[in-house]
Amino acid sequence: MSDRYAALSYRVPYADTDQMGVVYYGNYLTYFERGRGELLRNLGLTYREIEARGYGLPVLSAHVDYKTPARYDDLLEIRAWLAERRAVRIQVNCAVYRDGELLAEGHTVHALVELAAMRPTRIPPELAEMLDGDPSPASL
Amino acid sequence: MSDRYAALSYRVPYADTDQMGVVYYGNYLTYFERGRGELLRNLGLTYREIEARGYGLPVLSAHVDYKTPARYDDLLEIRAWLAERRAVRIQVNCAVYRDGELLAEGHTVHALVELAAMRPTRIPPELAEMLDGDPSPASL
Amino acid sequence: MSDRYAALSYRVPYADTDQMGVVYYGNYLTYFERGRGELLRNLGLTYREIEARGYGLPVLSAHVDYKTPARYDDLLEIRAWLAERRAVRIQVNCAVYRDGELLAEGHTVHALVELAAMRPTRIPPELAEMLDGDPSPASL
Amino acid sequence: MSDRYAALSYRVPYADTDQMGVVYYGNYLTYFERGRGELLRNLGLTYREIEARGYGLPVLSAHVDYKTPARYDDLLEIRAWLAERRAVRIQVNCAVYRDGELLAEGHTVHALVELAAMRPTRIPPELAEMLDGDPSPASL
Repeated sequence: MSDRYAALSYRVPYADTDQMGVVYYGNYLTYFERGRGELLRNLGLTYREIEARGYGLPVLSAHVDYKTPARYDDLLEIRAWLAERRAVRIQVNCAVYRDGELLAEGHTVHALVELAAMRPTRIPPELAEMLDGDPSPASL
Repeated sequence: MSDRYAALSYRVPYADTDQMGVVYYGNYLTYFERGRGELLRNLGLTYREIEARGYGLPVLSAHVDYKTPARYDDLLEIRAWLAERRAVRIQVNCAVYRDGELLAEGHTVHALVELAAMRPTRIPPELAEMLDGDPSPASL
Repeated sequence: MSDRYAALSYRVPYADTDQMGVVYYGNYLTYFERGRGELLRNLGLTYREIEARGYGLPVLSAHVDYKTPARYDDLLEIRAWLAERRAVRIQVNCAVYRDGELLAEGHTVHALVELAAMRPTRIPPELAEMLDGDPSPASL
Repeated sequence: MSDRYAALSYRVPYADTDQMGVVYYGNYLTYFERGRGELLRNLGLTYREIEARGYGLPVLSAHVDYKTPARYDDLLEIRAWLAERRAVRIQVNCAVYRDGELLAEGHTVHALVELAAMRPTRIPPELAEMLDGDPSPASL
């Protein structure tokens, strides 16, 4: 299952902070997006490629729980993993760490749409296979 | 109770869009913040003044449900209202409309902290009164 | 010439500030964009309509001079005006004020491109007329 | 002089794009800031440490020339180098590359201020030494 998980490093720029001296709360949704992008790359298909095939994964809902603030110049670790995959939607969980301490966690729920019509569609076999992983014993 | 409610207009700049041609999902948390700021102003104390008195309202959690995408140059209406006020935290609900159609809704939960120590504190009487409104019959 | 000028009000959200307690320097380019959008609206054709006709105005260069910082909750006035219109490019000047005090000023230079090919093109008569204004004595 | 130069990799998130399908022009100022942050780190003193000593480097002016648009998921290389160091201000040049191709370049000019008073000050010896590099033959 390790390919359905991603972790990346991210250095906090001044741009992400606000006058309370911490990362502005809305920026965590961009951190989550960075995590999801890396997750899809690990799964074998970048979001850019998903769009090139005519699909998109618009966000239906987003949730963030803030534990401890991230600060300027922190080197964060952003983790993302596939939490649920149903016929027409997926949920990705994300967490942000600094030196092993959890700063924030949450999730996003996505529909799969055909970009041309912006209409929800069932996840096609090629993507389902990627999301579900290889069921062969070799991959366990 | 009309003073515990706010609505403001907001024109979507190109900066807020992404390559799907819609407002990027993370920007709704800034829209919610604009709504909260106007709500506090209506309640009689701007967030700037709350900070000047040594308090802050950091976000503990945020949630957004996305219904229909907002687009470039849309003139949005952002609404915010006080949903819950307890001893140590408050919840503000927000919704984003375009021409009367609901595009997104959600909420944020905030602690009240003393900025000097960044330590949670009970809501002081002066703020509680403001948040709870005037109990006199005249205000009903 | 008053239609080749725009001014709009903008309330600074917490999102725009950084930990120095002022508006982050990159956000002024979004302020300039808000000014340009309003300028085009005043000229008679929104940027959304320009795109609908198949054209775009990508930025070739941008410059900002910072005089005095804008702060959280400031009610800014953003001004924009057409500074130069040549065969294939235009320059828009922008300035940001607070209570009549100049906080920042600068400009952007734009090419006109056909969106389909993303190729520079000469400004078509319909747009040139709009940008140059009505040559009739009545408008002087 | 190699320590007065910095280069870092940056993956473009969806958040940075706009509906033209390219990176929004204002985001390059954040890219420049990431470059400057890495430059200061290479020089031996992070901006966080400069602030801890009571100094800041607010931006006096910024300029960007855009050559070719950056796109979603591009792995950019951001380069920054110290272009000029005078008694009271410094200029940092920045450039953004993708696969060796120059996408954008520009510069920022900074004052040195004492944060407490937000008043310009002459660059103190400890910072001047760092910015000017070690004049001893050993470092050549």
